[in-house]
Amino acid sequence: MSSRTIEQIVNAIREDRQLGASELAAACMTGLVEYASAWQGSDADRFRSDVFTLAGKMQSARPSMEAVGNLVGRWCRELDDLKGADLGTNVNAAISRAQALRQQSLAAVQKTVEYMVDRIEPGEVLLTHSISSTIKEILRGVRGRHIRAVITESRPGNEGKLLARFLSDLAIATQYITDAQAGIWMPTVSKVLVGADSVLADGAVVNKAGTSLIAMAAGHFRVPVYVCCETLKHSTKSAAEVVLEEMDSAELDLPSIPHVEARNFYFDITPAKYITAWVSELGVFTRWE
Amino acid sequence: MSSRTIEQIVNAIREDRQLGASELAAACMTGLVEYASAWQGSDADRFRSDVFTLAGKMQSARPSMEAVGNLVGRWCRELDDLKGADLGTNVNAAISRAQALRQQSLAAVQKTVEYMVDRIEPGEVLLTHSISSTIKEILRGVRGRHIRAVITESRPGNEGKLLARFLSDLAIATQYITDAQAGIWMPTVSKVLVGADSVLADGAVVNKAGTSLIAMAAGHFRVPVYVCCETLKHSTKSAAEVVLEEMDSAELDLPSIPHVEARNFYFDITPAKYITAWVSELGVFTRWE
Repeated sequence: MSSRTIEQIVNAIREDRQLGASELAAACMTGLVEYASAWQGSDADRFRSDVFTLAGKMQSARPSMEAVGNLVGRWCRELDDLKGADLGTNVNAAISRAQALRQQSLAAVQKTVEYMVDRIEPGEVLLTHSISSTIKEILRGVRGRHIRAVITESRPGNEGKLLARFLSDLAIATQYITDAQAGIWMPTVSKVLVGADSVLADGAVVNKAGTSLIAMAAGHFRVPVYVCCETLKHSTKSAAEVVLEEMDSAELDLPSIPHVEARNFYFDITPAKYITAWVSELGVFTRWE
Repeated sequence: MSSRTIEQIVNAIREDRQLGASELAAACMTGLVEYASAWQGSDADRFRSDVFTLAGKMQSARPSMEAVGNLVGRWCRELDDLKGADLGTNVNAAISRAQALRQQSLAAVQKTVEYMVDRIEPGEVLLTHSISSTIKEILRGVRGRHIRAVITESRPGNEGKLLARFLSDLAIATQYITDAQAGIWMPTVSKVLVGADSVLADGAVVNKAGTSLIAMAAGHFRVPVYVCCETLKHSTKSAAEVVLEEMDSAELDLPSIPHVEARNFYFDITPAKYITAWVSELGVFTRWE
């Protein structure tokens, strides 16, 4: 099997609609390992130029996903030190550091999961939106505690269907609702749990479109909202600096008619005031009021 | 063509997914005219018994739609007076009063539309949810004022597609979004306009699921929310007394899997605090603070 080109690896990252930001960041590390392992040539500077090109394209492929930019950025900084070293040293470092960063990232997610699992009591009713690999692991961690789940369809990708299947396999009693029903179900819910694509400088959260609506409804009904993600997703950006990705409007399946444009922003920003707690590998944080 | 039975008329009301509450209330009057006109028999008491049976079944067919219960209830009260009158008098009254109530109801909607149209300035950006015959007439009334519209898909029935077609025909520039994107678009909006299935005793509004989420997001961004409906939809009920209709879960198109139930409540309740103004045939009302 021939190895993938830079464009092929980057396109797979750009076009992915299944992986969460943590998984996609890990996939970038795997892509760097794959590319570095298969690289053909004898010039260290050329190798460095090629892998940095790949890294840069990965970072710009998914601008809403802070974890991708951050993890790839860490890898770049670690490789910066090796300028002037020989090809073998560079290739080995490119591979081993990508593998190590991938491991650290996965361990941070696992620790985040553990902190949240510890906070969930038997019999709770948990509402989540879209699909997050971190939230999936939390739900796996609490199965057997007579937990119930309320999950959203999550248009237009309908990730809720994948999550429904996952919860079915865990035998967790689940109510599957349209995104628009979140307000109706909120009074039955004990905690809202969401992952994040990024957490901004002031604690605001970039996550799947609809998260802000759910968090506001939770606030109205005094249901606590927990945002669960490793610090790799923490950003120094403000809401004004965030680029919200717009995807193919064909996903909304609206026939082409004059004067009407289908629009498909994937992410929204939930202001920090609607979030009760931020959970990461460092612990559980809230406002000190 | 044979005339429809009570069950056929009531089933058409129960199963309708296209008409708003005002239109459905008017359709009930049309149904009463149809049934009374075609009634075969010679006994006035039997006629009264049959039409009251039809009226009662209409009222219970759509419990979330206050307008149906109210308009049919008015018709029943007007017919109550004729107990003891002959068959011809009863039949004529059943028909003429249904026709008159239908006209009054349509005139009230038209007046409501005029009050709202007067409040919309050139260049405004109006967001609405689901499809409301009243809101459609308001949008028709402001075309040519360089109005733009933001409309929601409105799962699971996707009434947004019908509204998109309507706005396209009016040449109103329209952004069509998933329900979950309402928070993203709210900062671009000047007014939220929604119809209602009913307005409760305290001003809370029963309307298509998702209305409460949109109203909360509007509140966050200080966008005013106008609820436009004739007083026929006003109710003396509290939120606790309202029966929210649940429809066929097959509309969510989730494969049958163990432990997971698809749920399909059509309506939610928006608390009065998230509503800026109530518009009816009596004028425009707000809180006096």
